[in-house]
Amino acid sequence: MPSLKQLLVGRPLETAEMHEQKLSKKAALAVFSSDALSSTAYATEEVLLALTAAGAVSFALSVPASFMIVGLLWIVVTSYSQTLEAYPTGGGAYTVAKENLGVYPALVGAAALLIDYVLTVAVSAAAGIAAITSAFPQLYSHRVGLCLLAIAVVMWANLRGVRESAAMFAGPVYLFIVAAYALGAGALLKSSGASVAVPPSGTGMGFPAEPFALLLLLRAFSSGCTALTGIEAVANGVQAFEPPVSRNARTTQFILGGILATLFLGITLAAHVHGLAPREGETILSQLNRLTFGTGAIYYFIQATTMAILILAANTSFAGFPRLTSYIAMDRFLPRQFANMGDRLVFSNGIIFLGAAAGALVVFGGGDVHRLIPLYTVGVFVAFTLSQAGMVIHWKRSQASGKHWRMALNAVGAFTTALVLVIVASVKFLHGAWIVLLAVPAFVWVFLKIRRHYFRVSTELSVASYDRVRTLKHTVVVPVPGINRASLGALEYARSISPDVIAVTVNVDGEDPERLQAQWAGWVEDVPLVVLNSPYRSILRPLLRFIDEVESFRNDDVVTVLLPEFVPARWWERLLHNQNGLILRGALALKPKVVVTSVRRHLQR
Amino acid sequence: MPSLKQLLVGRPLETAEMHEQKLSKKAALAVFSSDALSSTAYATEEVLLALTAAGAVSFALSVPASFMIVGLLWIVVTSYSQTLEAYPTGGGAYTVAKENLGVYPALVGAAALLIDYVLTVAVSAAAGIAAITSAFPQLYSHRVGLCLLAIAVVMWANLRGVRESAAMFAGPVYLFIVAAYALGAGALLKSSGASVAVPPSGTGMGFPAEPFALLLLLRAFSSGCTALTGIEAVANGVQAFEPPVSRNARTTQFILGGILATLFLGITLAAHVHGLAPREGETILSQLNRLTFGTGAIYYFIQATTMAILILAANTSFAGFPRLTSYIAMDRFLPRQFANMGDRLVFSNGIIFLGAAAGALVVFGGGDVHRLIPLYTVGVFVAFTLSQAGMVIHWKRSQASGKHWRMALNAVGAFTTALVLVIVASVKFLHGAWIVLLAVPAFVWVFLKIRRHYFRVSTELSVASYDRVRTLKHTVVVPVPGINRASLGALEYARSISPDVIAVTVNVDGEDPERLQAQWAGWVEDVPLVVLNSPYRSILRPLLRFIDEVESFRNDDVVTVLLPEFVPARWWERLLHNQNGLILRGALALKPKVVVTSVRRHLQR
Repeated sequence: MPSLKQLLVGRPLETAEMHEQKLSKKAALAVFSSDALSSTAYATEEVLLALTAAGAVSFALSVPASFMIVGLLWIVVTSYSQTLEAYPTGGGAYTVAKENLGVYPALVGAAALLIDYVLTVAVSAAAGIAAITSAFPQLYSHRVGLCLLAIAVVMWANLRGVRESAAMFAGPVYLFIVAAYALGAGALLKSSGASVAVPPSGTGMGFPAEPFALLLLLRAFSSGCTALTGIEAVANGVQAFEPPVSRNARTTQFILGGILATLFLGITLAAHVHGLAPREGETILSQLNRLTFGTGAIYYFIQATTMAILILAANTSFAGFPRLTSYIAMDRFLPRQFANMGDRLVFSNGIIFLGAAAGALVVFGGGDVHRLIPLYTVGVFVAFTLSQAGMVIHWKRSQASGKHWRMALNAVGAFTTALVLVIVASVKFLHGAWIVLLAVPAFVWVFLKIRRHYFRVSTELSVASYDRVRTLKHTVVVPVPGINRASLGALEYARSISPDVIAVTVNVDGEDPERLQAQWAGWVEDVPLVVLNSPYRSILRPLLRFIDEVESFRNDDVVTVLLPEFVPARWWERLLHNQNGLILRGALALKPKVVVTSVRRHLQR
Repeated sequence: MPSLKQLLVGRPLETAEMHEQKLSKKAALAVFSSDALSSTAYATEEVLLALTAAGAVSFALSVPASFMIVGLLWIVVTSYSQTLEAYPTGGGAYTVAKENLGVYPALVGAAALLIDYVLTVAVSAAAGIAAITSAFPQLYSHRVGLCLLAIAVVMWANLRGVRESAAMFAGPVYLFIVAAYALGAGALLKSSGASVAVPPSGTGMGFPAEPFALLLLLRAFSSGCTALTGIEAVANGVQAFEPPVSRNARTTQFILGGILATLFLGITLAAHVHGLAPREGETILSQLNRLTFGTGAIYYFIQATTMAILILAANTSFAGFPRLTSYIAMDRFLPRQFANMGDRLVFSNGIIFLGAAAGALVVFGGGDVHRLIPLYTVGVFVAFTLSQAGMVIHWKRSQASGKHWRMALNAVGAFTTALVLVIVASVKFLHGAWIVLLAVPAFVWVFLKIRRHYFRVSTELSVASYDRVRTLKHTVVVPVPGINRASLGALEYARSISPDVIAVTVNVDGEDPERLQAQWAGWVEDVPLVVLNSPYRSILRPLLRFIDEVESFRNDDVVTVLLPEFVPARWWERLLHNQNGLILRGALALKPKVVVTSVRRHLQR
């Protein structure tokens, strides 16, 4: 009979069933691009939102800002293409930083990546649901519930052990690429045919005065940098490529960069020429879509593919986060439960943790994750910078030909991403970047605490100085409330584990001790009964004192306390009995030389 | 060093320190009257609230309604005076009904009384706080917090073992009596001097047309019956009187009845002649007070004594409820924890339960307990009726002189209170009376379930058919994760409790079983190690299957499973280790022939 768990997540899989599939370039592009491409669904809107405070007149700044972002994208893609060659078995920021920069930078990278995975899920799910609520405004008030539902479905699929199968990704990703190009091109064509919508008046070309303009440009640029998130996916997953691995991965990386750049530029330009502005309840993409194609079949199709690619982006994190936590846990910086592979050959604890954390962020943010995006961007650029800096060291130590120009290339990447990190962190400091700047050191501190704990435990449990396995001498103390089947059952067990058994009872009702002892002797002759008087009606204090005395006066290695208990047939019936056994157990838990055992009698009715 | 508990509730008291004080009539009046007299603080307001829906024109009906209530009061007082004679050791509804009517009516009475005690605390605390917030309206928005604070203070005093000392009661009670008479008389005098405030127009004397008037009158009467609550306190506490007990108690009962009747009538008449109407944020009593004495020292003094007597009324329940639950628990109809006397010679569990339940009602009702009053009245009249009906049977069986007229007197009481119960339950059915009519049978059902459980347990634990105390044969199974100090420590203990020990390990990592066994033999030669393979990486399932096999194939009385555990030095460190021990313990808890023991190693750092 399958258990509830098996019905939900499927039958257990043998370790031997684990295998890796190898991907062609076309398949790999589908698998690794959803995170990066999906950011085009909200990056343009972030740029415009950053400019809203300065009035619609400043929206024109979105154009130079997006060209700067595309330039930055090209530097990052070029730098990363070198990581692919150097780390054909997977070059995530944690791995690269650990090997080249040492443990502390690696932990900083790990913290930034963990934060980013959680934020990816929250941001992608919220943006995916926004694509749907833009099309069906009546769903807008249910957006938190819908986000949670989306996260739960993806989490469930991953607990079942969904593989990053090309089959699953190819359809939605290629459909989205087609849809997004069609949207960008259609919108630009439409605007050139009709009268071009110029931003409502302004100074000259609609640009505000310097140096205010420079500051605004930096704001727009910082916000738009979220378009770069996910670009590192190819480097993380490089081991999945068909040979020649590095070449295929590089090609894929550049194709992905090209698609991302053109889509982001196209959508931003189209939004600009149509004079679109962010508004609550409908995304920029949906506005552009409605304007270009009307509210018909094409509109709904594009909204649906947008949602699909965003949900796939969330799914990507559900593959990446548990893998990363398992690496970190194997290095003993996270609880080892994250390294346990579950029934279905997935790291279930990591999946559940990620789903819960992302769900909490969505609830906390009320389904509006706009505020989370600055955090997200800061984390991504921490990882970029560490990864590129690690590559600089890698080439320095390497013997490869052309190591100098390669080092220079990665140095440019490291410098640029570090500069962008400083810009984003400063511009967005009050908008949430401070949270990441506090959280990263906090995570690192926790990592180090955990590592130190495991080290201590292994030292203390080491058998290096262990003498030999002895047999202990021990006395058994059996607290009995009176003569009943539970007490006598415990006595029978007690006599089987030691020749030294003492029964003890607490006399709360002021009965004659000798009468109690005589009655006892009628049942068990060879075990003495000690009667403790309790003028204050406490059961536990006299018992604890007696156990202490036995422990200190008798020359034992250990004292066993044997509690007779009975288990009622129904759970609620437990409430009808005192919990002295439980309390005694709690009080004795701290004593190193005491072993506590319950002998339970299960009641039948 | 005193514990936190001792600092809060005081040092433990010996059982021998228990004693009862005997009260003079004057002292007894103070002790037993607070509950009854305090209801004058809100009964008039309830009458007027019942009439509000019909408009101010109907307020004149408050006068005949209050005369009816006083008539009813007199019948109840006379009936109860007979209970005092028949039950000089205490004649609560539960006792009287149990002795004369049998177990089911007694349980109905018990249920009604328990509900009433909880409601008394909630209603009195809320009315006491209303007296204060009427004087200081700026506190009105904090009324829920203030109610909870008042309940907490009274609960704390009772956990310390506050005695129902005459000294504590006499001051506030007599001050309240004086203050309330002064208020009634002052208000009536003032109205006769000034122009009498006539209700703003209406038909004739301000009475609405029949038969609507009759219905309104019944509503007003039903609401005002809350004035009778608490009148049974003398009968419940009769054993505390000085001899001659019955005579003193009777005199006190009649004096209490007289004071209650005159105060209630006076306040209702005064409110009527001044044309007062209920309004949010200020009680009728406070309005009358302000009108009569102005907002000066006298006003604040009267409000303060009103609050004091209401808090004392709540305190009365804290003495009565735990005493009643202990009686019921001794009869095995409630969990026996209610019958355990605590450190300070009070039934702490009852006190805590009462405080929590009343606090929950206050929070649930938002500090406005007007809605609770119908529930309260229904419960009181259930108890009155059962008590009086019990007295009828008592006299029927009695040999006392004059038993016939005494029986007749109680019969009148029983009939009248039953009639009022039907009226109140009908009129107030939709206002909450239905809750009591559902809750009472539910309580009785729970009482009977509890009683049946205790009976079954005592049967199953009985040693009547127990053969003799044997020594058991048992095998010890020690699941070990590997060779470390915790495992070897558990092995040492295992060898001391049985000659038959088997160590078992689950091979998740696919290591060579023979290599593991060879390594093991290097440490412990005389205990075999069984290696279980686990292709699905589960630790628990193979272990449980193995324990089942040991249990079924070996000819043992019991299998002991010995879990090596280590206890980290800091609590949070537990999260860093798997909880397999806990889960295994849970899975084994249901097997009757398995004893589970943990051998803990306490880590030092």
